[in-house]
Amino acid sequence: MQKLSDIKEIKLEDLKPDAFIKQQIKEISAAVGKGVAINALSGGVDSSVVTMLGHRALGDHLRTVFIENGIMREGEPERVVKLFKGLGVKVELVDAKKEFFGALKGLVDPEEKREAITQTFYKTVFGRIVRESKAKYLLQGTNYTDVEETVAGIKRQHNILEQLGIDTKKEFGYQVLEPIIQLRKTAVRKVGKALEVPEEIYNRPPFPGPALATRVIGEVTPKRVATVRKATAIVEEELQGTKAFQWLAILHQDKVTGIRANKRDFGQQIEVRCWDSKDAVTGTPTELPFETLTRLADRITSEVPGVVSVTYNVTKKPPSTIEAI
Amino acid sequence: MQKLSDIKEIKLEDLKPDAFIKQQIKEISAAVGKGVAINALSGGVDSSVVTMLGHRALGDHLRTVFIENGIMREGEPERVVKLFKGLGVKVELVDAKKEFFGALKGLVDPEEKREAITQTFYKTVFGRIVRESKAKYLLQGTNYTDVEETVAGIKRQHNILEQLGIDTKKEFGYQVLEPIIQLRKTAVRKVGKALEVPEEIYNRPPFPGPALATRVIGEVTPKRVATVRKATAIVEEELQGTKAFQWLAILHQDKVTGIRANKRDFGQQIEVRCWDSKDAVTGTPTELPFETLTRLADRITSEVPGVVSVTYNVTKKPPSTIEAI
Repeated sequence: MQKLSDIKEIKLEDLKPDAFIKQQIKEISAAVGKGVAINALSGGVDSSVVTMLGHRALGDHLRTVFIENGIMREGEPERVVKLFKGLGVKVELVDAKKEFFGALKGLVDPEEKREAITQTFYKTVFGRIVRESKAKYLLQGTNYTDVEETVAGIKRQHNILEQLGIDTKKEFGYQVLEPIIQLRKTAVRKVGKALEVPEEIYNRPPFPGPALATRVIGEVTPKRVATVRKATAIVEEELQGTKAFQWLAILHQDKVTGIRANKRDFGQQIEVRCWDSKDAVTGTPTELPFETLTRLADRITSEVPGVVSVTYNVTKKPPSTIEAI
Repeated sequence: MQKLSDIKEIKLEDLKPDAFIKQQIKEISAAVGKGVAINALSGGVDSSVVTMLGHRALGDHLRTVFIENGIMREGEPERVVKLFKGLGVKVELVDAKKEFFGALKGLVDPEEKREAITQTFYKTVFGRIVRESKAKYLLQGTNYTDVEETVAGIKRQHNILEQLGIDTKKEFGYQVLEPIIQLRKTAVRKVGKALEVPEEIYNRPPFPGPALATRVIGEVTPKRVATVRKATAIVEEELQGTKAFQWLAILHQDKVTGIRANKRDFGQQIEVRCWDSKDAVTGTPTELPFETLTRLADRITSEVPGVVSVTYNVTKKPPSTIEAI
């Protein structure tokens, strides 16, 4: 493997997408030869572009899995699998909801929840699939921002094979391929477009890795995820027309008093955030029309069971952050 | 004592404030004679009007106490005592912060918190003062809405003397005087004006009995009350010019991620509510200018230690309620 600090960015203005694609296909083919490669598709831009590059290079020799962790947005797993089917790529849908919710049970600390999801993904689920497969080649969607953040010490550097529970001292011949490691997100999107993946994939707004678990304050249970998933669907539907950078719904743990059918109802609160931002480093709340805000509240409190109160966040970043946890 | 259901309302249009005041002074004087009466002043309209009626009737024979429970708004106890001093009424300020915070310690359930405050007020603090005083006459600010709600079963009917820990089977001669029991709030305000109390008293917006404890989700500690008190002062200052029905700041228990000096800061959230309403039975969130909302967030996150996030509630009542707990 290359030393991280030796990796050179291919800048957007220097990127020739078609030549880049040709080169990566050539390199993947040369590396894997007649072997079998495996990769995990999440439906985000990076893993989608890597899947397409791998598919073009290896065809049936690439095994692509989509891991349903139970904390994704409404209809997400089916949508991604169907979309890639339309592109001629067979994706295996692996139901791992039980493993993820089992690992999240009882956890309320944001860091512990994040760690449980990472561990379950790599070690328990994807690790098992890789170890049980004959695949010795792993395609990974590491991008140049990941490299930079690792070098800067913002992200911890992980040995992916170790994370997957593969003992490289005992088992030889594993190889990790990172075809988009020299590209930042905008360059990845450009390659995605050139690969002819649909715009809804290559122009997808960012979404956090731990998915809806990031949007639940307190314990992440199937019921609480179902609540925030419904609220998220409403927020995305109502706000997709805005030119904002990102919009989200957060389920609080605090209960608040509500009233239903003239009876006191101690219910839940959903917080809506919508950000104007260029780079997520700083941000300001989007000035949404007041009727949009009250319509969001009306819809969420009537369509999402148990929710009696909806707020809109009006704080800048800093001191706030884009996500709540 | 009269039967509650026999009490007749004096309607606003039938109220002759000067005649009413004269009549009540006469009745209080006749009842107390050369004895001593006692009352608790909270600074709200009802207890202020009762204090003035008692003062006019009894002068030095009325002992008025203001109980500082530690959960009031900024500067409230001093302000009320000073204001009544200006009206010639001597008010004893009783510091009972320790008793109240002691009773609230560890409580998170809204009903238990409310009950602890009520019990501490009546039994522990005011009860002790009444029992230790020679006063056999108690002036109370019960109004006609209290009567109605008790008759309708919305409020529990309390025997005030029993609540104060006075065993009326053993100790005789106690008498409770309720000079404004036939009046609703608007009529009480009219009497207040005729009594020449300042408008900031007789036109005071409603404020919940358990004060800032109602504005703290979770445990009510001196530190958490100090947080919501600062936020409340900012919200009241910024929103007093609006024509809204009520405005409030709520401290959440949920923590959210913030960022301060480039470091992750797991901090607190303040929720702002501002209501358009006629009667508090239904309400809609006030359409505040967006710059007012962001200024509130800027001020609260910079002036209130520990707060990194501010939201504005956009839900109608129902299904929301005016207060959060």
